[in-house]
This record gives sequence, C-alpha cells and structure tokens, in this order.
Amino acid sequence: MPVAYQAPDFLHPVAGVRLGVAEAAIKKPGRKDLLVIELAPGTRVAGVFTQNRFAAAPVQVCRTVLASGAPVRALVVNSGNANAATGQGGLDDAQAVAAAVAAAVGCEAGHVLPFSTGVIGQRLPVARMVAAAPAAHADLRADGWLDAMRAIMTTDTVGKGATRRVATSQGEVTVTGIAKGVGMIHPNMATMLAYVGTDAPLSPATTQAALQTAVNRSFNCVTVDGDTSTNDACVLFATARAGSRDIEVGDADYAAVYGAIEQVCLELAHAIVRDGEGATKFVTIDVGGASDEAAARQVALSVAHSPLVKTALFASDANWGRIVMAIGKSGVPVDPARVDLWLDDVCLLRGGQPHPDYVEDAGAAVVAQPEFRIRIGLGDGDAQATVWTCDFSYDYVKINAEYRT
Amino acid sequence: MPVAYQAPDFLHPVAGVRLGVAEAAIKKPGRKDLLVIELAPGTRVAGVFTQNRFAAAPVQVCRTVLASGAPVRALVVNSGNANAATGQGGLDDAQAVAAAVAAAVGCEAGHVLPFSTGVIGQRLPVARMVAAAPAAHADLRADGWLDAMRAIMTTDTVGKGATRRVATSQGEVTVTGIAKGVGMIHPNMATMLAYVGTDAPLSPATTQAALQTAVNRSFNCVTVDGDTSTNDACVLFATARAGSRDIEVGDADYAAVYGAIEQVCLELAHAIVRDGEGATKFVTIDVGGASDEAAARQVALSVAHSPLVKTALFASDANWGRIVMAIGKSGVPVDPARVDLWLDDVCLLRGGQPHPDYVEDAGAAVVAQPEFRIRIGLGDGDAQATVWTCDFSYDYVKINAEYRT
Repeated sequence: MPVAYQAPDFLHPVAGVRLGVAEAAIKKPGRKDLLVIELAPGTRVAGVFTQNRFAAAPVQVCRTVLASGAPVRALVVNSGNANAATGQGGLDDAQAVAAAVAAAVGCEAGHVLPFSTGVIGQRLPVARMVAAAPAAHADLRADGWLDAMRAIMTTDTVGKGATRRVATSQGEVTVTGIAKGVGMIHPNMATMLAYVGTDAPLSPATTQAALQTAVNRSFNCVTVDGDTSTNDACVLFATARAGSRDIEVGDADYAAVYGAIEQVCLELAHAIVRDGEGATKFVTIDVGGASDEAAARQVALSVAHSPLVKTALFASDANWGRIVMAIGKSGVPVDPARVDLWLDDVCLLRGGQPHPDYVEDAGAAVVAQPEFRIRIGLGDGDAQATVWTCDFSYDYVKINAEYRT
Repeated sequence: MPVAYQAPDFLHPVAGVRLGVAEAAIKKPGRKDLLVIELAPGTRVAGVFTQNRFAAAPVQVCRTVLASGAPVRALVVNSGNANAATGQGGLDDAQAVAAAVAAAVGCEAGHVLPFSTGVIGQRLPVARMVAAAPAAHADLRADGWLDAMRAIMTTDTVGKGATRRVATSQGEVTVTGIAKGVGMIHPNMATMLAYVGTDAPLSPATTQAALQTAVNRSFNCVTVDGDTSTNDACVLFATARAGSRDIEVGDADYAAVYGAIEQVCLELAHAIVRDGEGATKFVTIDVGGASDEAAARQVALSVAHSPLVKTALFASDANWGRIVMAIGKSGVPVDPARVDLWLDDVCLLRGGQPHPDYVEDAGAAVVAQPEFRIRIGLGDGDAQATVWTCDFSYDYVKINAEYRT
C-alpha cells in the first residue's frame, strides 16, 4: 500500500505522441508487457541514464542513438526482463527489438530507443517481442498513457502518472509523464524508468537542459534504499506541436513550461517513494544553513540513507540520536555546536544540544504521522536542499529477501 | 545468536595491567557497568577514534589527553549512557568521572581516559559513577579481563575477547583485547569500543603505528550497517614489562608482536560482525584485480553495504544481479567486460557475463551456508582488499525499530 498515493485515472494526451501496448509474454503470459511510444517527426528527445558501470544493453543503445543526433521516432519498453549483464548478445537483442518497432512505425532501426526493466542476466525472448511489435503498433492511441503506465510496472503496487497544462504566449501546453519504480533502483526488476512528454516547442538544447535540471530536483532527490540500478532512464520528448517558435532557456515562456515539467517529475518521484518497498512513511528531509547546496544535499542523503534512522522512523520513534549520528557521519565538516533539529515544528536540538523545552511525546506525535518533515539547520551559510525518503520496515526485508523465491 | 562465535572463557593477563568493575546503576541497577583499567607507569598508549563530527564528550577528552602527551595511568569505561550531544555539561561530566578514578588510582585527572557507550543525549549519572569509582578500584585484578569484557557490553549477545602469546628476542609477549559492538556503530548504544593491551616494549611511536595499521586491517574492514557512531574508540596500551629495549617498527621483533596485535584486532572485529544485529550469515568479500587497494576496498564496501545484496544473503538467494549492481554503483570505473564473480569456488560470471556452466543450484548451495566468500575479480590490476559483513534480516529491523520501546 503506497503512502497516500493513488494511480491517476486521467492523463492529458500530448499532441504528437501516440502509445500502444501488447502482450509479449516476456516473464509470463497474461499481461501487456510491451509498450511502444510513437513520436511525431521533429520531436526533440533528451535522456538521462544510470551512472551504474553495469549499464544494461538498452541503456547502451539509447546512449549511442542520442549521441548520434539521429531523429528519434519511437521508444519501445518492456517489463519482465532487464537485458542487463547479457554481453554482446544483449546488445543484439535490444537492436533486434528496436528494428521490429522501426519496421512497424516506418523509420530506421537507429531511430528507435529501447528500454528494459526486470530480471538481470537473462536474454530477452526476442522472437516473442518481435512478433508482438505489430500489435503494439496497431494499438497506438493518443489516449494510451494509462495503459502505457500499467505496461511498465513490475513490483509497483500502483501505476504512477502526472499531468499538467500551462499557458504560454503560443497557447496552452501539455506535460504528461509516467514512471515505474519502487526501490530507488533495483537490479532485478524495479529500477526506475520515467517518460515525460510535452507538446511545447522546446529547442533540442532546451529539452536536454530542462530534463537535466528537472531530474536533479526530483528523481535525484528521492531515495528508497540508496541502490542504483543498471537500467535507470528518464526521457523527455518535446513534440513542438504547441507553437511554431522554439523556446530557449531564458525565454519568457520557459519558466512556465519548465515549471510544469518539474512538477510532473516531482510528482512521479514522490510517487516512487510513496510506493517504496515496504514504505509506511513519506518523509521530507530539509537541510538549511549549509555552506553550499552540495553540502546540504550530502547531509540530507546521509540521513535519508541511514538504516538506523529509517528503522526508527518505521517504529514511529523520534530517535534524534540517530539523526545526529547520520549528520555527523555525512562527511560534511559540520560544527555540532551550531546544529538545530526539528521534527515538523517541534525543536529537538538547538546548537547541538537537547532543547530544554523538548518533551519526548511531542516528537513522538510528529513521527507517528504517515507524512512529516525532518528539518536540520547547520548554521554555516544560506544554502539548502530537500530530499524525500521512506522508512525501512519488515516488509522491505521480506520483499527483497523473497523476491526470487 | 552470533554466527559461530562463543565468548572466550580465558584471556591471558598482561603484565602491568589490572582491571576492576563496579555497579554504578547507570542505565538501571543490577549489573557491573563501570570498568577501570589501571596501567603501570611508563605504559605507552595510543588511540583511534570515530570520524563522526558529533564525537561524544569522552572522545573529545581522550583526544585532548593523548594530544597533550600526558602519561596515561588509567581508563574508565561505562556502558548504558554515551554522553554524546551533551554539550559543555557532558565534557564536565566526563572530567568529573576521570577525576574520581584519578583520585582512587593516585594520579592526575588529566592522566585518565574516559569512555562511554549507551544512549545519546542524556547526562551521565555522575554522582553514582563517582561514588562507584573506589569500588571499581578496589576490584582491580590482573585477571579481570573477562569481567571487563562483560561490563562494556550493551546489546551484544556475547562478550568479545581475544588473546595471543608470541616469542620475541626479549622473551614471551602477551597481547589481550576486549571489544563491544553489534552494529558497526550505533548512535544510541552499540558503537564500537575495543581495548588491546600488551606487555611488549613497543616505543610510543610504534604503539601508535601498530594500532593504526591493525585497525585499518581489522575494524575498518568490517561493516554491519555502514553507520558510524559518535563514540567509537580503539585503544592499544603497551606496558613494556616484557623486555627492556624498546621495539620500533622494522625491528626484528616487531613483526611477531604486530602480528599478534593484528590477529587480536581481527578476531574482535570478526566477533562484532558475527554478533551483528540480526546476523544469520558471516560473509567474506574478496575483491582482487584492482588498480589499487583503495579501489578494491571501495568495491568491496559497496557490495557489503547494499541493502539489496544483504537481504538476498539473508534469504540464501544467490542473486548475483544485485552483486553486479553494487559493483557497478561503487564509483570505481570498473569495466563490466572484465569482471569475474565467484561464490566460494563456484564461478558465476566471467568477463561480465553469466558463466555457461553455472547452474542456480550451485550458487544456492554456497549461500545456504552460514559462512561463505564472495570473490570479485576486476581484471584491472594486482591490488586486492577483503571486507567482512553479515546479512540484513527481519531481526535487524526488529532490533533497531524496537530499541527504545
């Protein structure tokens, strides 16, 4: 059960984007596990990918296609198999699937981006996927977003989607996105995938810049377990159907369009944490008073990753000693005598020492809530950062211990 | 239940060292929770301490005493309260306890090292500790090591001690050590403390060098949860009673004495992992073929810290995809096409791809054992490193979620 999150029941179509799904029985029969996203000619596509050195075969293919500057006409995504640690055979498989989709769409194989999510170290059932590609193509619809959202799920307990409309000087612009993921990243299955489309006429360079900034402020600010998958990918495509003049960073319309993109990414990123494996709490960690944003972020992530903090949150225990420990081990040269700590509006520490008015019941009341905020002041500057995370429960261990059994 | 570890029932005395315990009812009455270790005049003392910025008050006092070069005549250790995040009052408390022990021993207050382990953020019951100091002093015995071992336990399920005797050109030398700790470090209670004594005439500089090297090869190579306490400390004291000529690094006798110190430290460090909170497996992670030792260590720790790897180990699941993921996210520029992976003698990956002869049952048989080895070859050089860790079980969550309830 995700923490206060429900799958959307409506997502705005994006002019120039059609989506279709089909059953390829990749892990097992009985579900639509192959997704094709067709993009109108002229669509600008940007991607960010996992930093894991064991990048999966489809990630390697995507990087090559995007680096070539080739016009991307379609994406193909499968759940049930990650096509990672599969060597040259895996690269061949990813290209064969892309070629089948290219044939259906009517473009070159090098103009299709492949994505996979699922178990590591097994070859894709290429024949079944190639055979299913025409069916996915035949299913293409502008209103296919909700089915697409479901097709990419693995152990997600809910589909994750977000949608926004904003006004620009060239008319209304739509931004719609879908994502999957339940551990921050899972080598076998979960891993994060996100696809965000807009009809805004973002220039190619602006599409990349907007994606990078939005990812840094959303997907890169959430953590479930600190692990990093072999398959992570986030793609932004701008079909440029809503306007004839390209929007560049700094243009009057950019702020509105970028704002919608960031909101969609943030909503999807939060949905991943809310649906985090075994999560019972959604926790916002705000670090302020830092010398720079990187230091603030490093402290926030140290708290967010600490198993001792996360197990205390699960127990609704306002165990601030563990938070202090995690601040102190972050690697940032924090001065303990300047550190303040709050749970929501309850002050626990002032200048590194227990606040004289603090009573345990007040802290316990905050952390008993399904959502709350840990606020940390470092007293060392003006920079701040925010990170979102969940707790660490019996069910996290259960889900991950029993995944393959 | 620790993994294949029992508390020792005998520890060799060390000439020049006497230990005594007393009940100060620090957390609750009914147990000996105050330990005094008296050192003969002329003993050389070296310490290494937590890198956590929120170092506890006693750690701060120890650093000051050792930096002053003052002769250390006694150590005082309490369990049940960490005296951390207690500000100036905590420093005053640590000094008051040291002064009481100094009065009993007959030395200056600045010649006593204080140590604390237990709950963070609460002031020490100084009056009870000062009152108990004479009783601990009256209890001083050369054979007090086993009682000392028990006095410093918190949630340890067994006491941890190790002892060795080796021959030198000046006669037989003894090395005996005790430690406590069950999470790699715990902000509230566990935290690691270790005390190792020898009668070898190590020079002051050699005492420090031997300790630093031994810690790097033992306590710094084990991890339970990757958290780092506010109170960690490891102290080596050399009473110089077994010989009249100082031993320096490089002397003929140094290798034998250092070897015994490292063995004692390694045995204590392994005992901490074997008694790791909720541990059901003791796992050795060997990384070879690295460009340098730091890279090997970084890869080994990335695997050892991964919650996904640790939950799979708990489930006796030879889920090599998660190991590959952890190698790839380590930050070391690993070339996947050169990576080999074994579980004990079973080869799973060769050159980054599943070994053709590997069958799941063979891997499962290895990880079903209570102790096994993960071997990783990076194919990038000759350097290697070894790290020891345990699995991540329901009981880890239970112990840490319910600690304060």
